[in-house]
Amino acid sequence: MAVILGIDPGSTITGYAVVEAGAQPRAIEIDCIRLPRTDFPTRLGLIFQRLSEVIETHRPEQMAIENVFVSRNAASALKLGQARGAAICSAASRGIPVSEYTPTQIKQAIVGRGHADKTQIQHMVKVLLGVQGALQADAADAAGVAICHIHHERTASRMRVAATTTGRRA
Amino acid sequence: MAVILGIDPGSTITGYAVVEAGAQPRAIEIDCIRLPRTDFPTRLGLIFQRLSEVIETHRPEQMAIENVFVSRNAASALKLGQARGAAICSAASRGIPVSEYTPTQIKQAIVGRGHADKTQIQHMVKVLLGVQGALQADAADAAGVAICHIHHERTASRMRVAATTTGRRA
Repeated sequence: MAVILGIDPGSTITGYAVVEAGAQPRAIEIDCIRLPRTDFPTRLGLIFQRLSEVIETHRPEQMAIENVFVSRNAASALKLGQARGAAICSAASRGIPVSEYTPTQIKQAIVGRGHADKTQIQHMVKVLLGVQGALQADAADAAGVAICHIHHERTASRMRVAATTTGRRA
Repeated sequence: MAVILGIDPGSTITGYAVVEAGAQPRAIEIDCIRLPRTDFPTRLGLIFQRLSEVIETHRPEQMAIENVFVSRNAASALKLGQARGAAICSAASRGIPVSEYTPTQIKQAIVGRGHADKTQIQHMVKVLLGVQGALQADAADAAGVAICHIHHERTASRMRVAATTTGRRA
């Protein structure tokens, strides 16, 4: 079964989720990296190192990460971009493909529609993965993007099967 | 002599300069990474990998990078941030300290005042490093931030010497 690493990047907290694809997706490790109040380059190094450890341990075949287009302002976009770059590098530097999903795609995959609040996402992620107890918000978002990727791959593979079947009938 | 790796990050071109500190700074390698028109995660992986090779070859003791506060808009800040994050990770993940300098600090160090155009920077970088022939703009900017770091370290070390001397007199 394919193992997916979902990421919710941030310069204060970066959430990550290792999820195994299947008829019923299974959570392998869901957690978050809490960055110390130190200089920015050190934080980026920590994001990269911690995610490198997660990759070496669980050998995911794919990274999935939220694609953000808007931000409050240029300064916060620059900070988020750097955290995102550090996270992506941990996979891309090892030749692991990285897929990007918009917030709307993620919500659609998790709750069935493009608009949903944080608590709804957290609730559905727990239901879908059968997680008991509390789930930190950034860790839940990371699991959300991993599940979104699994749904997309499944739909894409069904479409390939359908196309082949149609081809045979014709 | 300390070896400094200066970086001018960008998602299209990332300039880098390996400069040896000394009474007369010396250029070891000045070049730029031209990113292919491929997906963004792949580009970030390439920035990280190429800079990792440069670090393994020249073993710099320090990375110096321009600190950008403003950007045209949030979307371009996010792109620049990611390229910056990838570059910083190549050093920070190896425990190499990363120093950040504002554009004003860099111009001050290279041309002696906080306002200077690109061609002036390029000209002075060539003069200071004794580089013959043309120098690509991003590569020159990367050399500029490396020279800025060397100046700052020299000034800081002189101030430490002065403080010790004053201490002895007292």
